[in-house]
Amino acid sequence: MRRSIATVCLSGSLEDKLYACADAGFDGVEIFEQDLVVSDRSPEEIRALADRLGLSLDLYQPFRDFEGVTPELLEENLRRARERFETMRRLGVDTVLVCSNVATATVDSDQVSAEQLRRLGDLAASYGVRVAFEALAWGRYLDDYRRSWRIAELADHEAVGVCLDSFHILSRGHDPAAIEDIPGDKIFFVQLADAPGLTMDVLSWSRHHRLFPGEGVWDLGRFVTHLARAGYTGPLSLEVFNDVFRQTDTFRTAQHALRSLVWLEDRAARLLADDGAVRHAAGSAAGSTHGSGLERIADVDVPTGYDYVEIKAEDTSDVEVLLDQLGLAFRGQHRTKPVRLWSSGDARIVLNEQHAREQEPHLAGIGFGVADASEASDRARALAVRPAPRRTQAGELDLAGFVAPSGLEVFLNDRRTETPGGQEPAWAAEFDRGRPGGGGEITGIDHLNVSHGWDAHDEAVLFYTSVLGLEKPSVTEAAGPQGLVRSQVMRSASGAVRVSLNVAPVGVSHPEHIALACTDVVEVARRARDRGLRPVPVPDNYYDDLRARFGLDEATLSLLREHQLMYDRSAAGEFWHFYTPRVGRVCFEVVQRTGGYDVYAGDNTPVLLAAQDRLDRGGARPSGW
Amino acid sequence: MRRSIATVCLSGSLEDKLYACADAGFDGVEIFEQDLVVSDRSPEEIRALADRLGLSLDLYQPFRDFEGVTPELLEENLRRARERFETMRRLGVDTVLVCSNVATATVDSDQVSAEQLRRLGDLAASYGVRVAFEALAWGRYLDDYRRSWRIAELADHEAVGVCLDSFHILSRGHDPAAIEDIPGDKIFFVQLADAPGLTMDVLSWSRHHRLFPGEGVWDLGRFVTHLARAGYTGPLSLEVFNDVFRQTDTFRTAQHALRSLVWLEDRAARLLADDGAVRHAAGSAAGSTHGSGLERIADVDVPTGYDYVEIKAEDTSDVEVLLDQLGLAFRGQHRTKPVRLWSSGDARIVLNEQHAREQEPHLAGIGFGVADASEASDRARALAVRPAPRRTQAGELDLAGFVAPSGLEVFLNDRRTETPGGQEPAWAAEFDRGRPGGGGEITGIDHLNVSHGWDAHDEAVLFYTSVLGLEKPSVTEAAGPQGLVRSQVMRSASGAVRVSLNVAPVGVSHPEHIALACTDVVEVARRARDRGLRPVPVPDNYYDDLRARFGLDEATLSLLREHQLMYDRSAAGEFWHFYTPRVGRVCFEVVQRTGGYDVYAGDNTPVLLAAQDRLDRGGARPSGW
Repeated sequence: MRRSIATVCLSGSLEDKLYACADAGFDGVEIFEQDLVVSDRSPEEIRALADRLGLSLDLYQPFRDFEGVTPELLEENLRRARERFETMRRLGVDTVLVCSNVATATVDSDQVSAEQLRRLGDLAASYGVRVAFEALAWGRYLDDYRRSWRIAELADHEAVGVCLDSFHILSRGHDPAAIEDIPGDKIFFVQLADAPGLTMDVLSWSRHHRLFPGEGVWDLGRFVTHLARAGYTGPLSLEVFNDVFRQTDTFRTAQHALRSLVWLEDRAARLLADDGAVRHAAGSAAGSTHGSGLERIADVDVPTGYDYVEIKAEDTSDVEVLLDQLGLAFRGQHRTKPVRLWSSGDARIVLNEQHAREQEPHLAGIGFGVADASEASDRARALAVRPAPRRTQAGELDLAGFVAPSGLEVFLNDRRTETPGGQEPAWAAEFDRGRPGGGGEITGIDHLNVSHGWDAHDEAVLFYTSVLGLEKPSVTEAAGPQGLVRSQVMRSASGAVRVSLNVAPVGVSHPEHIALACTDVVEVARRARDRGLRPVPVPDNYYDDLRARFGLDEATLSLLREHQLMYDRSAAGEFWHFYTPRVGRVCFEVVQRTGGYDVYAGDNTPVLLAAQDRLDRGGARPSGW
Repeated sequence: MRRSIATVCLSGSLEDKLYACADAGFDGVEIFEQDLVVSDRSPEEIRALADRLGLSLDLYQPFRDFEGVTPELLEENLRRARERFETMRRLGVDTVLVCSNVATATVDSDQVSAEQLRRLGDLAASYGVRVAFEALAWGRYLDDYRRSWRIAELADHEAVGVCLDSFHILSRGHDPAAIEDIPGDKIFFVQLADAPGLTMDVLSWSRHHRLFPGEGVWDLGRFVTHLARAGYTGPLSLEVFNDVFRQTDTFRTAQHALRSLVWLEDRAARLLADDGAVRHAAGSAAGSTHGSGLERIADVDVPTGYDYVEIKAEDTSDVEVLLDQLGLAFRGQHRTKPVRLWSSGDARIVLNEQHAREQEPHLAGIGFGVADASEASDRARALAVRPAPRRTQAGELDLAGFVAPSGLEVFLNDRRTETPGGQEPAWAAEFDRGRPGGGGEITGIDHLNVSHGWDAHDEAVLFYTSVLGLEKPSVTEAAGPQGLVRSQVMRSASGAVRVSLNVAPVGVSHPEHIALACTDVVEVARRARDRGLRPVPVPDNYYDDLRARFGLDEATLSLLREHQLMYDRSAAGEFWHFYTPRVGRVCFEVVQRTGGYDVYAGDNTPVLLAAQDRLDRGGARPSGW
């Protein structure tokens, strides 16, 4: 289907927005009235620029407070409409969005609204314009799309149809299935927005907190299937009022927006295919979306685990000291690059010193194991993800890599080799064996904790859901000495891949960490201590609090205290863990889960944040040993 | 009354918080449990530090999910309580906050809750602790303070009373008047927070958006009068969960917090006095607050107008060019300082080049005319506002000056002299007359538009309300090319003083402006143009939009267009205005109001923001003349 976007979604001038939308690959735009009013370009210039860029101007929006009014006001409203139609003629736009009246309506009657829309339809037709009537969620009398359609039907005018906006329908909890009762050719326009699950007044929610599809809580894929079944063939257009996207880089946000539409079409096409398969029993799934115009991209290939995590810096020696203390083993130097591999079990840490001048240690890349790297890469490319550079030489594996919104490079690999210690990624053979694989208690990577700026968070969520098929089960908040840190947990359905996306307070850099899974955290901690590690100190008050909360016995408390371990418990099991001090921007956590414990000890995060703050200020006390 | 604050209001470590609270002048603090848990100081150390700083530790909070539970859970809860009482003993805190159960309550019975609290009371008494029971707004069964008091009354235990929190009472819309039905000695603690008028789920509202008293929409002065009448004599304690205050400088925020309490006590004392005056007919108002313990400070002296606005820079020549173009006259050089005065009518602009090396022109000070500068200054000092330096020499007026949260210096003056052209501030005599006062159409200062960072906004609102007695009638939002700009309008009841506080998007500097009132904006614009001014260009599309919105005739539109004027209209009158380009961070607006038009043309702000953005990018087109 044609892909469109309202100019109000983006920052910058109207010309900036047009250039960015064309660059991202949109087919058309909706011109938001204020964007034109504040522009110093004439409607004719805007039209010509859009023409040159290959963008259609799909909608002029919005025209407010038209119907349900007194006869006198109707005449004034028709005068206003004529002025807008004149502007639309100059722009070459043939569809106008007319919202249900919020301010001046005094008559609550389908009949009156229909008659008044018919008058508007007559005027519109004389300008070659179509009126797309939309029920705003906060319309004075009219806030339900089923009623706006009833009125449009009553108006019975070829120039009068409806505009359907997912926000106005889903924010009110209205069932979108009745869209299928509307003839497709009377749906003149469709606007799409997702939203976070907030309980707040719908106007503020709508004006400040909308999200691109896939970033919120609604099933927009299902929404689009209703449109397809109704026979709608017009544009799918994003209308996302969001305070953050109004500020972020215009070109980057346009790409981000387009990615959400590509993802959404694919999702809707798959739902239609599934529905078709059910309906036609043994029928061909591929055939069932035929005619919907919904474009399907390569299948999502959810990562089965972590191939490696990459830490980059000009000098990674301090990281190597930590890895050695934690019991990982040096696995060798890369044949051709200043890159080194450390491992234990399935935990592989790649230390990269190339092109890293003056960089402090930071999380630079994640390698995921997938079933079919070629298909997974096709999907990433279809979602317009920027490829990551990888210099390969003869005999080296050519991995597909992509740049995630934080700048993190994500590589996908499906080639594995058998070794005496079990399977491992085929690229590991590019590293000279320094000494045999580690025999430590570390068994793999439990999860990653990645930081994003406040302005890249939603984009990151969409990246991990659309490209990698991760789910977004929960958001947590932890109070630190410098403000609240919010974390969005992303995970694969199996739990094999878990990435926690942190948003730190404005102006504060929040550390990232790599959580290593192990079978005996006390043993890891003991051995690390013998090798000189001083874990992040845990205050005595914390252990007093543990005693109060969980009623732990003194032996357990003293074991925890001895090794500066933190603890959590759920109905399903226990969680024992500790943190290393930070090196550059990154630190390690070592975790041991028992039973079915499946969360992240969120209550312990404030303890970590306070302790790291003390270390940063140089206020660490000597520990007890 | 004693002034206290919960440590959760502030950023930093627990020690930072104690130092800052003592520095600001608080009498005590509530220790928020998590602040202690994450601290590396022992309870004994915290107690000793607080002792040395002269702070009492008034409350340990919170203890959650105690009552309304099964007998088994009650035993476990009593075990938890014992651990907390042990910690309180070490801290030397004798009051614990027990919130109504949100998670584990299964029994909805006053009798059962009362019995369980009586058990807790027995245990508490053995530790010398009092239990302050509080109805959380989102308690599972119990969310009304009237019921929490009923249960405490039923418990009938000397160690069991209530804690009253303005947020939990007012967010639910409960009438606080029934506080007067509770015996003062059974109100064990009082927590105060204001809040913005948001419609959202009460838990998020409470956890992220509380404000200090005077910054939100609630009448906390009235709330405190109910406490005084009930005979409450304990601390008034601030408990403000706010994402911003968790990040701002600990010391600055503690001062800001204390200012809100001083203001609140004064306000409550005045309400009590007024009530007393009404009750006792001709009785003495001063006597009526006797015994309430509420401290009254000097009367607020609402400014009657602007004495001057000060622009500071290393070189203010470019500002002088603008002032000359707008028809203000140079009034002379200050006798002893590199400071110059320009004026027309009551518009006085002071240009200050002292101590301004490398500073670009910016709004640096505001002089307000007041009835009694000495009393107004006493009030500012009582509210712990930092004094602004002013170097005076023999024969010069010694003005009282204060530093507002943005760094803006505010001076207060009550001395005026008669001149042939009417009254003017006495300090004007310190300027040598360069030439006679301007005879331009500019008559005074209409309003000021001041920018604050996102982290100083609420503090600024409190400054203008508490120190200067301004009201905060409305908040507007305007979309600019770099994001939304929010403006809080502050004004005196008479409308003589209007200051609009802008919050620009993070990372964006938003221009400030000085709006000059005039009697004939067309004439000012014409003369300015003759003197070479090119006002901020207004796009043609804007005039097309004006035609559509207001149905203006072509003659008016062409007059507006000729002079690049913007226009607005309300039921009461009209607003005509234009802007000069920015010099440094500041620009001028010239406005003409007709009829009773009393707002600020908010719909035109996006036009200004877009035009300024074009000027900043160097993209200004040649105008038509």
